[in-house]
Amino acid sequence: MPQLRKDPVLKQWVIISPERGRRPSDFKNSPPHTPDDPKTCPFCEGNEKKTPPETLAFRKSGTSPNEPGWWVRIFPDQDPILVPTGDSGRMGIGMFDAMNSIGIHEVLVEVPQHHQTLQNVSPDQVREVIWAFKQRLLEIKKNPRFKHFMIVKNSGSGVSSFTHSHSHIVATPIIPKRIEEEIDGSREYFHYHDRCIYCDIIRQELSQPARIIHQDPFFLAFCPFASRFPFEMMIIPVSHQPFFETLDSDHVTGFASILQILLKKMELLLKNIPYNFILHTSPISEAYRDFFHWHIEIIPKLTQVAGFEWGSGFYINPLSPEEAAKFLRES
Amino acid sequence: MPQLRKDPVLKQWVIISPERGRRPSDFKNSPPHTPDDPKTCPFCEGNEKKTPPETLAFRKSGTSPNEPGWWVRIFPDQDPILVPTGDSGRMGIGMFDAMNSIGIHEVLVEVPQHHQTLQNVSPDQVREVIWAFKQRLLEIKKNPRFKHFMIVKNSGSGVSSFTHSHSHIVATPIIPKRIEEEIDGSREYFHYHDRCIYCDIIRQELSQPARIIHQDPFFLAFCPFASRFPFEMMIIPVSHQPFFETLDSDHVTGFASILQILLKKMELLLKNIPYNFILHTSPISEAYRDFFHWHIEIIPKLTQVAGFEWGSGFYINPLSPEEAAKFLRES
Repeated sequence: MPQLRKDPVLKQWVIISPERGRRPSDFKNSPPHTPDDPKTCPFCEGNEKKTPPETLAFRKSGTSPNEPGWWVRIFPDQDPILVPTGDSGRMGIGMFDAMNSIGIHEVLVEVPQHHQTLQNVSPDQVREVIWAFKQRLLEIKKNPRFKHFMIVKNSGSGVSSFTHSHSHIVATPIIPKRIEEEIDGSREYFHYHDRCIYCDIIRQELSQPARIIHQDPFFLAFCPFASRFPFEMMIIPVSHQPFFETLDSDHVTGFASILQILLKKMELLLKNIPYNFILHTSPISEAYRDFFHWHIEIIPKLTQVAGFEWGSGFYINPLSPEEAAKFLRES
Repeated sequence: MPQLRKDPVLKQWVIISPERGRRPSDFKNSPPHTPDDPKTCPFCEGNEKKTPPETLAFRKSGTSPNEPGWWVRIFPDQDPILVPTGDSGRMGIGMFDAMNSIGIHEVLVEVPQHHQTLQNVSPDQVREVIWAFKQRLLEIKKNPRFKHFMIVKNSGSGVSSFTHSHSHIVATPIIPKRIEEEIDGSREYFHYHDRCIYCDIIRQELSQPARIIHQDPFFLAFCPFASRFPFEMMIIPVSHQPFFETLDSDHVTGFASILQILLKKMELLLKNIPYNFILHTSPISEAYRDFFHWHIEIIPKLTQVAGFEWGSGFYINPLSPEEAAKFLRES
């Protein structure tokens, strides 16, 4: 079973998930496993038997689970980094802390057809994907073992093992470090100002719109002031909303729309660039309601991160967010 | 001039260093600039005129600065991310914080010959490199504008623009986030235990040596308990030492030796793998003396970091540090 281990200085949890029998030479330049043939792709309609049983699917009435007939489908990852059953196994190992890697790791297939992408499917299909996320997260939330969940999409060669359009849902028994940091920063700001820092950032960006890419009554998309990467983007609801999973119907439609607009702009501008997006939503607790504000980060994989960034947490971005936003607005 | 900008939530400084005239298409798959010909390589002996004037060189007596005759040479980076002169320019931009990117960014060329590496030069040469680092850092330390410095080595294709063996020296007016986090964690531990956490980690690793790669009376090399990456390594002085730049002659020799041993082991095991190393030393202040303990992180670039890690700060390592240490010990 994979193990969660905590760095004693940084208090950062790492999943140690050894793949059995791997030799050092296996790590070198290992090309990602990409079954790019709809006949063998486990995510394609008709190949449902190649995946673990589904946990949620939107499917035509009259069709059975794990059969064709679906338009969005969720199932446990074949090779999970966290497993849903067993004891949490919190333990001290000398001065170190570890626990079993208990959690949820599922795959959401965003469209039944192999070569479709979130950019070119219908707006309705993107909306269905968002509904499926919401519905599945509400279900996972009932399990008191998990403190936080994320939605992560890795798209493109080098960042994903599969070409078929999909995302990951990950629920964890701990709060990931980056989210802890956002909580710490936004809580401190709230204590000082009695305002949500993200709400203030939205007001700030709207007052000087150089970094804005797109806006509508429900959402704002912009390149953050201290972007770490070229064309880094954030989508955030304009009104204060801590929890992604409680978003209402208007916001589902609005979010689907702005997400697709941004992905299309990115494709127009940067062509088939690999990218990641990740949902930052409040941990599963009312404690964060006042000061956490859910948002999505989208990061195109343009630059190599060299040692400087790993070691220092100090990023060098060769493109200003103002320039990036201008390119994206105009594309 | 590049600008330092602070993320208001994460309190993370980012260097925005736009390269003028770059178009979006320039970012895609841009191959690193690698002048792999000793005739044109600016780091080769004989090509001193292709670099800014040297700030330090160890050279044969009778030779002049910026001429051949050196064995280690330091000069400002041609394309610096921080510049040494000018006003700090601390400013508020609405709710955001920024400052001019004041600092030192220099290159240390580790050997005059183009195809040599730290693995295959003489132990004496590695020692000279360490002396040069120490000497240059002691000089930089006199400048009260800088709070912290780092040594960063990016080696190999995809992580460095130059193939000729070199490192970077970077002095900053702020303390990088990762170092701040190490300070916070080690200070908290010290307040609780009245002991340096790194000293305790050393004792812990020595008591159960599964993660130890190499040890001698002065240094310990091991794979950290919560390694983020396969074959991640740490070298740390066994005795409590906050400041790299004050290391004595025995430790210079000892550090050169263990560094070369580890790089050789890594080469034997992983062949020409790109790697980074980064020095974590105390900020330039006596305030950290009791609880900070300098160390070097070495990270071979074997795995692609996907969106999960960027967005969450939550790393997945497919090789346990115990297995990694075993492979490295035996190679």
